[in-house]
Amino acid sequence: MSETLLSSRNLAFELYEVLDAEGLTQRERFAEHNRETFDAAIGTARSIAEKFFAPHNRKNDENEPRYENGQAILIPEVKPAVDAFLEAGFLNAARSFDAGGMQLPTLLSQACFAHFQSANAASTSYPFLTMGAANLIESFGTDEQKQRFLQPMIDGRFFGTMALTEPHAGSSLSDIRTRAEPASDGTYRLKGNKIFISGGDHPLSENIVHMVLAKLPDAPAGVKGISLFIVPKFLVNDDGSLGKRNDVLLAGLFHKMGWRGTTSTALNFGDNGECVGYLVGKAHHGLSYMFQMMNEARIGVGMGAVMLGYAGYLYSLEYARERPQGRVPDSKDPNTAPVAIIQHADVKRMLLTQKAYVEGSFDLGLYAARLFDDTTTLETEDQRKQAHELLDLLTPIVKSWPSEFCLKANELAIQILGGHGYTREYPVEQYYRDNRLNPIHEGTHGIQSLDLLGRKLAQNGGAGLKQLIRLIANTAERSQAHESLTALREPLEKLVARLQTVTIGLLMDLGQGKVNSSLANSALYLKVFGHTVIGWRWLEQAIRAEEGLAKGNAADVSFYKGKLQAARYFLTWEVPGCHHELAILEARDDVCLTMQDEWF
Amino acid sequence: MSETLLSSRNLAFELYEVLDAEGLTQRERFAEHNRETFDAAIGTARSIAEKFFAPHNRKNDENEPRYENGQAILIPEVKPAVDAFLEAGFLNAARSFDAGGMQLPTLLSQACFAHFQSANAASTSYPFLTMGAANLIESFGTDEQKQRFLQPMIDGRFFGTMALTEPHAGSSLSDIRTRAEPASDGTYRLKGNKIFISGGDHPLSENIVHMVLAKLPDAPAGVKGISLFIVPKFLVNDDGSLGKRNDVLLAGLFHKMGWRGTTSTALNFGDNGECVGYLVGKAHHGLSYMFQMMNEARIGVGMGAVMLGYAGYLYSLEYARERPQGRVPDSKDPNTAPVAIIQHADVKRMLLTQKAYVEGSFDLGLYAARLFDDTTTLETEDQRKQAHELLDLLTPIVKSWPSEFCLKANELAIQILGGHGYTREYPVEQYYRDNRLNPIHEGTHGIQSLDLLGRKLAQNGGAGLKQLIRLIANTAERSQAHESLTALREPLEKLVARLQTVTIGLLMDLGQGKVNSSLANSALYLKVFGHTVIGWRWLEQAIRAEEGLAKGNAADVSFYKGKLQAARYFLTWEVPGCHHELAILEARDDVCLTMQDEWF
Repeated sequence: MSETLLSSRNLAFELYEVLDAEGLTQRERFAEHNRETFDAAIGTARSIAEKFFAPHNRKNDENEPRYENGQAILIPEVKPAVDAFLEAGFLNAARSFDAGGMQLPTLLSQACFAHFQSANAASTSYPFLTMGAANLIESFGTDEQKQRFLQPMIDGRFFGTMALTEPHAGSSLSDIRTRAEPASDGTYRLKGNKIFISGGDHPLSENIVHMVLAKLPDAPAGVKGISLFIVPKFLVNDDGSLGKRNDVLLAGLFHKMGWRGTTSTALNFGDNGECVGYLVGKAHHGLSYMFQMMNEARIGVGMGAVMLGYAGYLYSLEYARERPQGRVPDSKDPNTAPVAIIQHADVKRMLLTQKAYVEGSFDLGLYAARLFDDTTTLETEDQRKQAHELLDLLTPIVKSWPSEFCLKANELAIQILGGHGYTREYPVEQYYRDNRLNPIHEGTHGIQSLDLLGRKLAQNGGAGLKQLIRLIANTAERSQAHESLTALREPLEKLVARLQTVTIGLLMDLGQGKVNSSLANSALYLKVFGHTVIGWRWLEQAIRAEEGLAKGNAADVSFYKGKLQAARYFLTWEVPGCHHELAILEARDDVCLTMQDEWF
Repeated sequence: MSETLLSSRNLAFELYEVLDAEGLTQRERFAEHNRETFDAAIGTARSIAEKFFAPHNRKNDENEPRYENGQAILIPEVKPAVDAFLEAGFLNAARSFDAGGMQLPTLLSQACFAHFQSANAASTSYPFLTMGAANLIESFGTDEQKQRFLQPMIDGRFFGTMALTEPHAGSSLSDIRTRAEPASDGTYRLKGNKIFISGGDHPLSENIVHMVLAKLPDAPAGVKGISLFIVPKFLVNDDGSLGKRNDVLLAGLFHKMGWRGTTSTALNFGDNGECVGYLVGKAHHGLSYMFQMMNEARIGVGMGAVMLGYAGYLYSLEYARERPQGRVPDSKDPNTAPVAIIQHADVKRMLLTQKAYVEGSFDLGLYAARLFDDTTTLETEDQRKQAHELLDLLTPIVKSWPSEFCLKANELAIQILGGHGYTREYPVEQYYRDNRLNPIHEGTHGIQSLDLLGRKLAQNGGAGLKQLIRLIANTAERSQAHESLTALREPLEKLVARLQTVTIGLLMDLGQGKVNSSLANSALYLKVFGHTVIGWRWLEQAIRAEEGLAKGNAADVSFYKGKLQAARYFLTWEVPGCHHELAILEARDDVCLTMQDEWF
């Protein structure tokens, strides 16, 4: 039977040939693990995803959550799926044994999670949001908060959300208006309205813990005046039992183009003046805490985009192999039998493009997960700091690149299926609709481009960037052991060299206060930077493929040849195209910046 | 009030400043017309589109046609809208006065029709399909067929469809299996199954006339064995009254991602062996007849894609003007009021890109409509033939370019609205879903690329291409009167020169039988050719804008400046990027062609 969620062979390639997952077991934290425990976790994830998540993916879409009596009602299949996920321990896969987890590397927990993201993006969102909220309390909450709210989340009894956006403030968090007044008992009373809160209501857990951004009365203006609060749907008594309903009202549900199975809610906090919240960490530090969660969330969103791309790629690949139609151009005789459409060059192009986008960003997402492990388990503080710097730099790419290019992959999957792909009788149109959310939530594409160019590049004196350049140079150097990779290496080296020059120029301009002109074309910069990173990852994959081929295992020859072809596609068809955007960036072209409202 | 369907100022620019609509009134056929009659027709179209079509666009989407007792049921709003369209005479806008039409130039009838396409793609499809079917009978039917079937279509009593696709044969029409057996009375008995037949059933007309492709018993294999038949839903008696129900069964409806208001049907012909059909024209010539209809349909599909892009552009523009959020990079003080998001450079980029795509292809679509007028009303046969050659060459671009780039425009419109754009509370997500059909139907994108590169370029010794090159050179030359256009002209000239060389090389390869390698990268060729054509049209628009500016009408200054900025965007941001694809085409790069099934 063909695989529908991801290619196991490709996952094994990533884990054991590219990213050295086994090397992690040398570290103390992961010493109890080995390839067998890793593979067992993956096998369980795959089997639960196939059995409980994939079967109701379409039903989720066709029966979006309903608003009834102030509550969100889901289809009955979601809870058993999420319960199976919790039961198997995936919510706490990366958490320590002590805290009830599996103490897996994040690389592995992400690899497991990817199966669920591919099977059913919507149902997977509920545990995903809970993990983020739990990590936030774990990092910044008091012991008492951990006891009261975190432990029940770890136990799977409470779920979580992330409540940032307000009707008038999406990307611009500095303008949020939700207020928090200190009460005499040390808690706070919140008042405000939040929108687009995913998982803001559902019947999957006893309680929902909202992580809410709000402003204290003495807050300074802007982002430095934002604080973070725990606001539970039900108050929690000292003995851990549920208390009375908190003053949090489900005001309504949003109806989305895709990703319909996840409730998207409007929540009113404190309509009756009785919304109790608990300050997390220090006053006015909320945004920096939230950013930790957002950075993890962004990697998760990026991987979610990859997996929707992956699901569409595998489906359209299977379809192209089975669907006979037409003949190849040099044998048009209508008396001959039609060929499978995978024989048509343009269909191969659409499949190869999908493969390059999906497997390229799958590699990057897992690479980022492994970097996350490095930030916590490398030996010296300096090493950990370095890993952090690189991960920080790559995060906007990990989030945005698949959001753009795996959406493009889904567009191609539809095209391969033709008219059928456009109907709801086939799954690819849903992947496309679901994936369209990813360039919007967790920081829009535009926000990611400003984060990269306006913030991340210059952080710590450009330490992350320098590290990345060194890593790319290292890959390029190692690739020279393989004659066949010259044609793949050269375009990457050429691009990196020019990107460096452009980057230095832009940073100098920024340093001199020319912010508007430097940032005006940040979208182009984001694309080129992303293609550079993905190009690097493809060259790395190509080296591993050559090494694999050299081992001479006949069963693997086709797999490695496919890797080399996809690497060649990306490095020779996509990477050189970026010089066009670099030329525009070099010229500081101002056609967009100087466009005037009244000229439209 | 802001305009929602299209910009009237831009339409007037196209008709009266770029395409010389008034010049057409010098021709005998249009002598009764003048700018006033043109504008009156446009005003009527706009008002009916706004009043009857736009209001139920979302309702169409939310309440797709239902299958009940063998019939397709639509929402009640469709019929009054279509009736108003018929009542105003738009079905026959281009038909002669004698035949009950308005005898408008196709340029004007298309300009009128664009309003409906923008307001409601789905409801507009019913008259659109009817026009195509009617034109086919008009061109190739017998007098008796015209009397029996065409006249009631012109009268708005019968509607039409185009029944080509079968379950196993979409793009590959040579493999259709529907059979037509001659009966003793000179009619035929059809047997076969068709799918994806738009408008295949509905309650909007007394009868539905299906134009069906089928094969006669003695048909040669392949496309040269296809014949065209009229197959009515109800037989028509000699006195014009409806006879018994024909043996055409509505087998089911397809449920699409978008464009939901148009029924997409599966039709069974002859399940009971009693499906009566009437041969149109000569046996085995059906495909060439159908191609005439398809060519018109392809221009219509292209304009449909443009208008969905246009609707999204105007909506997102209005939103960007009204939505305050954030501050520009060099004045981040959170105590200042947020700016309208149209002030952000990246939002300007997304709007300017939409403007360039939408107005560029709007111009091309209308240019093609005017060429159609030239094919029928230019003075000499030679002139008409030339117009035909150019129109034939441009048709794949008119169809495919907006299908790809105005879909991209819709993607940007969603992005500008952010989370709101992803919800069904706003219209832009529907435009995006509706538009995703356009690269699929009426010949997929891949088919268009093969039509262009494998057929149209070499037709008549490349006469169309030579004509196009001359026209572009002429525009480039005239642009030299405006110093400011140098930077816009040069990238176009550079691209055209290289495209010519590449084209000659590919045609030579094709001539030498290297078909697989020449056609392998046809998708890239299609993109470059399309950008060349749209770039040319933008340079033409820029010249007209400069001329308009020179007239010094203060009220028009912003309009013309916007034109020049969009032209600059397209010619300097988009056109130069095509050299990358040209390099791949020059190299005859075979990375896609040589990819093997088992390597995926």
